Amino acid sequence: MLKNAVVGQSGGPTCAINATLAGVIDSLLKSKKIDKVYGMINGIDGILNENLKELNKIFSDKDNLSLLKLTPSSYLGSCRVKLPEENEDKKMYEKIFSTLEKFNIEYFFYIGGNDSMDTVMKLNNFAKSHNKKLTVIGVPKTIDNDLWGTDHCPGFASAAKYVATSIAEIARDAYCYDIESVTIVEIMGRNAGWLAASSALARSNNQSAPDLIYLPEHPFEIENFYKDIEEKFKTKKNLIIAVSEGIKDSNGLYIAASNQIYKNDKFGHMKLGGAAKNLENAVKIKFGCKCRSVELNVLQRCASHFLSKTDISESFKIGKTAVSYAFKGVSGEMMIFKREKSDEYKMSISSMDINLIANKEKQMPKNFINANGNDVTKAFINYARPLILGEEKILTKDGIPVHISLK
Amino acid sequence: MLKNAVVGQSGGPTCAINATLAGVIDSLLKSKKIDKVYGMINGIDGILNENLKELNKIFSDKDNLSLLKLTPSSYLGSCRVKLPEENEDKKMYEKIFSTLEKFNIEYFFYIGGNDSMDTVMKLNNFAKSHNKKLTVIGVPKTIDNDLWGTDHCPGFASAAKYVATSIAEIARDAYCYDIESVTIVEIMGRNAGWLAASSALARSNNQSAPDLIYLPEHPFEIENFYKDIEEKFKTKKNLIIAVSEGIKDSNGLYIAASNQIYKNDKFGHMKLGGAAKNLENAVKIKFGCKCRSVELNVLQRCASHFLSKTDISESFKIGKTAVSYAFKGVSGEMMIFKREKSDEYKMSISSMDINLIANKEKQMPKNFINANGNDVTKAFINYARPLILGEEKILTKDGIPVHISLK
Repeated sequence: MLKNAVVGQSGGPTCAINATLAGVIDSLLKSKKIDKVYGMINGIDGILNENLKELNKIFSDKDNLSLLKLTPSSYLGSCRVKLPEENEDKKMYEKIFSTLEKFNIEYFFYIGGNDSMDTVMKLNNFAKSHNKKLTVIGVPKTIDNDLWGTDHCPGFASAAKYVATSIAEIARDAYCYDIESVTIVEIMGRNAGWLAASSALARSNNQSAPDLIYLPEHPFEIENFYKDIEEKFKTKKNLIIAVSEGIKDSNGLYIAASNQIYKNDKFGHMKLGGAAKNLENAVKIKFGCKCRSVELNVLQRCASHFLSKTDISESFKIGKTAVSYAFKGVSGEMMIFKREKSDEYKMSISSMDINLIANKEKQMPKNFINANGNDVTKAFINYARPLILGEEKILTKDGIPVHISLK
Repeated sequence: MLKNAVVGQSGGPTCAINATLAGVIDSLLKSKKIDKVYGMINGIDGILNENLKELNKIFSDKDNLSLLKLTPSSYLGSCRVKLPEENEDKKMYEKIFSTLEKFNIEYFFYIGGNDSMDTVMKLNNFAKSHNKKLTVIGVPKTIDNDLWGTDHCPGFASAAKYVATSIAEIARDAYCYDIESVTIVEIMGRNAGWLAASSALARSNNQSAPDLIYLPEHPFEIENFYKDIEEKFKTKKNLIIAVSEGIKDSNGLYIAASNQIYKNDKFGHMKLGGAAKNLENAVKIKFGCKCRSVELNVLQRCASHFLSKTDISESFKIGKTAVSYAFKGVSGEMMIFKREKSDEYKMSISSMDINLIANKEKQMPKNFINANGNDVTKAFINYARPLILGEEKILTKDGIPVHISLK
């Protein structure tokens, strides 16, 4: 008898999570083992509320599948649910598994980040220990690129491409006036600096910005920051500085939350949001020059009009491979990218025990950050450059990209 | 004897000002009347400081001209100089004209906004009243779209396309969680709402955001704003609101500068920058729901990776036409777009007396804004939609768009 499958998306949106969803759906629809393909509406909440949508019909239309690949954010909706331990709330697990049985579901695919992999781990452990017939596979996604076990995460590269491109454009914008200026660009990444580091990919075609890069992995000291700027001003008039939202001082205090850097300010009690905004004010007080802060904000995770073709193609493929692994009997694993050791960029896909991955966070390794903690190394560029190559052709109507939507 | 020509760029950068520069250069290089084509470095400052760059060689290479068309910001650098009246500083005018004579320059092209057209007017008036042989032509550019006399301004449409595309993407991002939320997007335009209004172009392909639009042309009242949100929450969970940076209350006070909207806040003395940031805090206090503000910031004027093909092609053409008008003996005029009255979008290019244009500001007409002052009308959509159609193919290297740079 044919079985059904369910797929869900969880955590913060990216530009590639729907490409992975498209890969999972595509392989499930083509399989002779599967009858119905359900989407969880808003992740695991969709199971808990029996809010499932049958996807067979809509995605048997190839045009819809193509649109899905290039639509940003989570088509099925997302959630930020962390499942309790079994002994804390066994009823929740029973509810989940009764819904799965009710819908005759034996394959469960969950696309997400750290917390989502925790869900994959817990459901797989529950299924195993209670003899439930359920294959559970996690598929990574996060612009933060901080999942353990995989060379990189689907969604990271498109965000990185957007960040680097925006930095190159902001630099051109800043260079147009013949006066000293500092532009501070704030990039997402609370504990891991991968995305802020990617700003360095803007340095191509004789373009030298960003001039300084600060990451959460290295303690941020305001006095060193001032010295770095003074040094750069010796040779350049318009400085572009990339900072991760999560930069912290040596006491672990977020610069975004800090008002200590205003000690020279007569309005020293002011507390503004954002690392870049805080540093903008600090630079204005210290140097008296023109200074602007730019928060790339949610656009870095949803600006799908300039995607990395490599990212979208890999994200689709890892979704498809997840299905083939599930059919091979793999369960309780997260799909991973493995980079082959060769001059040419080559990526293979396999899987890893979810218990080795869930709830861990991968920060930038030391050899990717320079000794002064104000830039990245060549090794990082070599790592990240291949990921952002290529562009997708975007379908537009009325001058605006076309997205596919559930509603 | 062959004469020389000079071209300059002035005011804030756009994504199309270099396309216009490319048009001017292309026609000048092809003309048999012209020997050297000079670029003013940083606008009129380049003349005052004799900082001119000969452009013939670099742009006889067609690839460089193509790159220039798609490079954002001002290739020649810009300035924010407003010339004094002749009787205030005659020496400045004498310096300008002595430089022009020294370099054998008889054609002067200036690409810019309101202040730049003031420069065009003053130089033309001085030339006329002192029998100087100088042909002076202004070519419009501004993302603000607020220049008088022309149907629209080069650069506006690419910014509008970026704004509308970003709104559509931000909407997808906001829809992914199943909780009430308000996202407020701040768009440039201090006194004219054209660009914020363009957010409405995101409403295509069954996409309904933005839900509310507030413009500087209509007084902004916080109580009406709250009522508008309450009304929209009756039918929709995630609201996307577009606001112009220049929205003002009925007393003419900028919302960006206001702290009155915090009267319910126990921290009522806080004063934060930005209209959207202020409204974000107001919404959080009033509704207690998730609220985020997004400032599109400089990217709306420099994000050249997703240009309006219509804009770039028109911007190039108006630069070329400026040269042909100059050779016809036209001087002291600004080039303008005229829209033909037909169902199909057709634009012709002509010129208008600079005295009728300089120092004026074109706001949105009443029939482009709805009666409640919280949206645009169909008439505005019909006006703006044709301008954002088509995309340019962007040349990339290492995954990043290639720009051309003076340095």
